[in-house]
Amino acid sequence: MAKTNPGRFFEDYAVGQLIEHAVPRTVGAGERALYHALYPARHALYSSDAFAQASGLPGSPLDDLAAFHVVFGKTVPDVSLNAVANLGYAEGRWLKPVYAGDTLQSASEVIGLKQNSNGKTGVVYVRTRGSNQRGEVVMEYVRWVMVRKRDIDAPAPDTVVPELAKVIDPADLVIPEGLNFANYDFAAAGEDHRWGDYEIGETIDHVDGVTLEEAEHMMATRLWQNTAKVHFDATFRPDGQRLIYGGHIISLARALSFNGLANAQMIVGLNGGAHANPAFSGLTVKAWSEVLDKAETDVPGVGAIRLRLVATKGGEPFALRGDDGKYLPDVLLDLDYWALMPL
Amino acid sequence: MAKTNPGRFFEDYAVGQLIEHAVPRTVGAGERALYHALYPARHALYSSDAFAQASGLPGSPLDDLAAFHVVFGKTVPDVSLNAVANLGYAEGRWLKPVYAGDTLQSASEVIGLKQNSNGKTGVVYVRTRGSNQRGEVVMEYVRWVMVRKRDIDAPAPDTVVPELAKVIDPADLVIPEGLNFANYDFAAAGEDHRWGDYEIGETIDHVDGVTLEEAEHMMATRLWQNTAKVHFDATFRPDGQRLIYGGHIISLARALSFNGLANAQMIVGLNGGAHANPAFSGLTVKAWSEVLDKAETDVPGVGAIRLRLVATKGGEPFALRGDDGKYLPDVLLDLDYWALMPL
Amino acid sequence: MAKTNPGRFFEDYAVGQLIEHAVPRTVGAGERALYHALYPARHALYSSDAFAQASGLPGSPLDDLAAFHVVFGKTVPDVSLNAVANLGYAEGRWLKPVYAGDTLQSASEVIGLKQNSNGKTGVVYVRTRGSNQRGEVVMEYVRWVMVRKRDIDAPAPDTVVPELAKVIDPADLVIPEGLNFANYDFAAAGEDHRWGDYEIGETIDHVDGVTLEEAEHMMATRLWQNTAKVHFDATFRPDGQRLIYGGHIISLARALSFNGLANAQMIVGLNGGAHANPAFSGLTVKAWSEVLDKAETDVPGVGAIRLRLVATKGGEPFALRGDDGKYLPDVLLDLDYWALMPL
Repeated sequence: MAKTNPGRFFEDYAVGQLIEHAVPRTVGAGERALYHALYPARHALYSSDAFAQASGLPGSPLDDLAAFHVVFGKTVPDVSLNAVANLGYAEGRWLKPVYAGDTLQSASEVIGLKQNSNGKTGVVYVRTRGSNQRGEVVMEYVRWVMVRKRDIDAPAPDTVVPELAKVIDPADLVIPEGLNFANYDFAAAGEDHRWGDYEIGETIDHVDGVTLEEAEHMMATRLWQNTAKVHFDATFRPDGQRLIYGGHIISLARALSFNGLANAQMIVGLNGGAHANPAFSGLTVKAWSEVLDKAETDVPGVGAIRLRLVATKGGEPFALRGDDGKYLPDVLLDLDYWALMPL
Repeated sequence: MAKTNPGRFFEDYAVGQLIEHAVPRTVGAGERALYHALYPARHALYSSDAFAQASGLPGSPLDDLAAFHVVFGKTVPDVSLNAVANLGYAEGRWLKPVYAGDTLQSASEVIGLKQNSNGKTGVVYVRTRGSNQRGEVVMEYVRWVMVRKRDIDAPAPDTVVPELAKVIDPADLVIPEGLNFANYDFAAAGEDHRWGDYEIGETIDHVDGVTLEEAEHMMATRLWQNTAKVHFDATFRPDGQRLIYGGHIISLARALSFNGLANAQMIVGLNGGAHANPAFSGLTVKAWSEVLDKAETDVPGVGAIRLRLVATKGGEPFALRGDDGKYLPDVLLDLDYWALMPL
Repeated sequence: MAKTNPGRFFEDYAVGQLIEHAVPRTVGAGERALYHALYPARHALYSSDAFAQASGLPGSPLDDLAAFHVVFGKTVPDVSLNAVANLGYAEGRWLKPVYAGDTLQSASEVIGLKQNSNGKTGVVYVRTRGSNQRGEVVMEYVRWVMVRKRDIDAPAPDTVVPELAKVIDPADLVIPEGLNFANYDFAAAGEDHRWGDYEIGETIDHVDGVTLEEAEHMMATRLWQNTAKVHFDATFRPDGQRLIYGGHIISLARALSFNGLANAQMIVGLNGGAHANPAFSGLTVKAWSEVLDKAETDVPGVGAIRLRLVATKGGEPFALRGDDGKYLPDVLLDLDYWALMPL
């Protein structure tokens, strides 16, 4: 029997199944610095312990998306090693900030299964939870992927498609304990615009661009212990290209969005997301945002803002879909998230 | 109104103006390791806590140039986003070592303005100070840049050109508190040559070379939160090349200078510097130094040495300028600094 | 007199000579994170403080191979700057784990010399010891290299060829103090296979591949302060290629071997190794292993497993040598080591 991990195939999943993912990971000062080296991240709360402390936190946490990537990376060997496509995200919430010294592990529950009509693949829905060394859940999200069957003749499971919220109710967003923006220093944060200055429907071109490099996306993806072969092995795809981990584009776009959204400090909810087109080394990524919604929170001074974040590899800002309703070929990412901003 | 930062134009500056730069930055073990991964840095005081402690410091500080890059990086969005050229440095002094856990921020005072005769651009002089979370100034320097006007018809300001020292008086150099070289271990430091072994006018070919990579200069420049588009976006320049941050070449040349100047441990003064020619990925950088001056300090056992550090992309060592007085095309950097060395 | 280090030539060595290598190095959270960014390392003991503590250690140590690279890197300026070839390793043992904050230094004793019949080169055998800031030896190994003579007419030294163990006696392996696998969590470690599940002669194809990048091997090699020009300077070799540090391939292959050997947690012995063919950027590295031997240890629950680890740049797994007895052209590395595994 081979000792290597062949990954799970569609017929290996059952609704209700709980998968505890391997290799817990302690994060620290090194991951934090690498995140700032790999992405043009400038949100002050993640750059400065002093700024984070003035905001009521014990120190600067690991970037929310870095926490997401670590939790996500652990699921790859069990969930997406034989995946054909990453189809969507929903109901993502950040529940506790992650600090240097924390050890993260992940577990996923299978919450839905649907065999495709071709009989060769199926869709697997999992709810993944990342927890720290104290057993506290630090984040959770639903992801669904299309997975190959090992045996085409294996019987189809009963179809279960979970009902997922299109958007997280702002009342369900978790504000980190102690967070307050009463002493918020807009000059230190980099921009004057507060929650009240953004209007629903407003769009922002983030202007800056970053050209993708093989060494950078591989270092990032490895740091999250994501093991998908297609990101690292140039002989894996017939075209000799290494497909860039979609999360690399998410982090890059979010970092670029600092320019215009410097005060959208913390990400607390992931409503949905699509990797519209594949990304490869050599492309230059730009980003734009659209304000989709706004909500007050029960913490004085802290507002929630719902943002669409789009990453592109060219074309004009604010162009998303063609007349056929499909993403334009230059669109790489369409992400829908909630962030916290000073009122 | 656009929410992104358009940068300041020439007419936005006034002599006496104080600009507090955004996004304080906590540095730590990650930045330290990345500095050693990105540059062949080997000076023992920055490599070993034990060596630093034997030299009277609490531990190994962040490399002096890394501290400079962090302080400098913060100024870019306010000072050089619309700069045409970085013209010079003067009166740079390191005043306090930076240790893991320190949070740095920067502020710049406009100390000079001079519109160019073409009416389209002008020179802005700023004195920048970097300070830590205790409000202590850790370094300061003067920089002048050529900046575009937004409106060519805007009136020219009164010309103020600051008088800047060509060379920092060695009496004004600040020796870090507690520093002493009484127990200096030359074997551990890597070379036997002490202050007395260097002669004014002596030149040293540092022999080693490093070929520049896109991923490396971008990671370094990002780590310092330098936001100049030209370093990251291959679509920004008509030739499709990413211009390498001049500070990357400074750090690379300084690290290469270990071979022959292993005991020039700490940089304490920046007398001047010119980025003679642009640097791009694929070039191989070598370095040479010339001893310009020597001075004693008021700390027993600690000498100051004034060095010219030249980085090249080819050609013979020690060739700097052509018959026309201009830098030779292979010269990338001409830096003039003071370092501390055991007597 | 040139102030730069010309390196030692064959006639500069004498049997019994002790060389204390320069530039002690403090390692920490940054080196740890970079190791995980540069290699797909997933062994749980090095990824998670919690897992390491459950195994009786104070926390997650620096990867064993990272410790080796730091100790090795220090020897390069004194041992292999003028080396023509790195010929072999023997009698390598890890004696103490290295933790964040430790400062490493290296010293080598010349234990053998043999001039080659061509009179132009000779073989130098050194036993290198790396020690921490408390003077404890953390690892030791023997290496032999072919070194050029400065002066072909220099007399040949008496030939001394040390007797080196082909394989370290398992009784001589040092189990880290406190290590125990009584509470070993196989699910967290990533695989079920324990010591008893591996058979001598068994071979494992590790399946995954990683394409080599210039920025990655240079960052790794620099981090270990290895100064060999050939790794960094594209103008050094006539073919314009940068030769990749053999240790980069060792770490990469070991990380790839997680898939099938996730429970071979700690490396404690290096029996031998050959860099069979040079590696360059752009190649895709895969790895396979063969179980060479197994042994019990005097720590209950901890078994030793002797593994051959082979890295390739193509070809079929398990092919090592041609009919002529020579390594096949696709073989990059043939390493023979002892690891610890739960019984």
